Amino acid sequence: MLKLYGYWRSSAAYRVRIACAIKGLKYENISINLVKDGGQQHQPCYGVLNPNHLVPTLQDGDLILNQSLAIIEYLDEAYPEPSLLPDEPTRRARARALAQNLAIDCHPLNNLRVLKYLTAELGIDEQQKRQWYHHWLKTAFGGFELQLEQSAGLYCVGDEITVADLCLVPQVYNAERFELPMGEYPLINGIVGRCRELEPFALAAPENQPDAVI
Amino acid sequence: MLKLYGYWRSSAAYRVRIACAIKGLKYENISINLVKDGGQQHQPCYGVLNPNHLVPTLQDGDLILNQSLAIIEYLDEAYPEPSLLPDEPTRRARARALAQNLAIDCHPLNNLRVLKYLTAELGIDEQQKRQWYHHWLKTAFGGFELQLEQSAGLYCVGDEITVADLCLVPQVYNAERFELPMGEYPLINGIVGRCRELEPFALAAPENQPDAVI
Repeated sequence: MLKLYGYWRSSAAYRVRIACAIKGLKYENISINLVKDGGQQHQPCYGVLNPNHLVPTLQDGDLILNQSLAIIEYLDEAYPEPSLLPDEPTRRARARALAQNLAIDCHPLNNLRVLKYLTAELGIDEQQKRQWYHHWLKTAFGGFELQLEQSAGLYCVGDEITVADLCLVPQVYNAERFELPMGEYPLINGIVGRCRELEPFALAAPENQPDAVI
Repeated sequence: MLKLYGYWRSSAAYRVRIACAIKGLKYENISINLVKDGGQQHQPCYGVLNPNHLVPTLQDGDLILNQSLAIIEYLDEAYPEPSLLPDEPTRRARARALAQNLAIDCHPLNNLRVLKYLTAELGIDEQQKRQWYHHWLKTAFGGFELQLEQSAGLYCVGDEITVADLCLVPQVYNAERFELPMGEYPLINGIVGRCRELEPFALAAPENQPDAVI
């Protein structure tokens, strides 16, 4: 059985959980609590699995793999139905680019370890931290909304769920948690609303994980 | 003919240039100067092509695509020889994960726009900026070096060039530019040295671009 080392609130783990739920893949859920014990991701035993000390990590037999997008591509190749990437090459490229607009240009900047560095090393206050967080979300969502005008149907790329939707829903969960006003992003809001009505997205939601603290 | 909107010093554009050079793809090089005119990437005409106002952007016929890793995957599917991803599924996954360790967990944090925000909005000084830069490089390279122990041959994944090498060489170029001591990373140094001896890597190097300012 697959093993997924994750954390209920991690956006990156959330993406992989959605992929597993869509594909009907069962996995053993191993919680790496990012805030308890100074961050369980820093423990040496986890470092053996993931020397970057981040979540998620997937174990499938002998394969131990980090990076949510690499994990999703692997799952899509190993367990192809239903696919998370369009067959048509330009739409396939578009889905990957949209996913990366969030996973590369937005999420890493607002990650827990970065916020910790900003606070502990650079001494920024809560107000500055909030501005930082909102700044990168707004930058990313502004560009994303414009790109959706070219590509969206019911979901980010046409009418099928792709890896782009798997990145968008966790990113919006994050934005809501940090109280970003979402009024300027009608296409994003529409897509996220439709995704949330689907069972796999509900199964993967942070509040429905065994390690959730509500 | 392909059009590549890039900048000589952009690590992300550099990755795509290596991919094109390996595949023998000719492209029209359009320089988007990230420092001139307050950053040409912010100009409205470029925003039509890339609403995220970052480089690179690839144009291939009707397809206009951003995100270097999505561009590389697209090129690898559209122009498959030589491939930049191993055929074997777990090595393929490993190559993607290694690439993302740099392209997701390291590079976005040290990007020009982030350094600008840190300076202009948070008022950090040169010393703090350097510490920030080195911190994320060291964090990424430390984990990368450990992962190479499992996967490397002549290059990051075995003895064939993959997308991981396309991300590593520009990241090390960056690290050298910011004077990161590289003594702790013998596997990284060996791979980068071997890559730099290959003609496609030389063709794609920043100093060999028409818009280079040396």
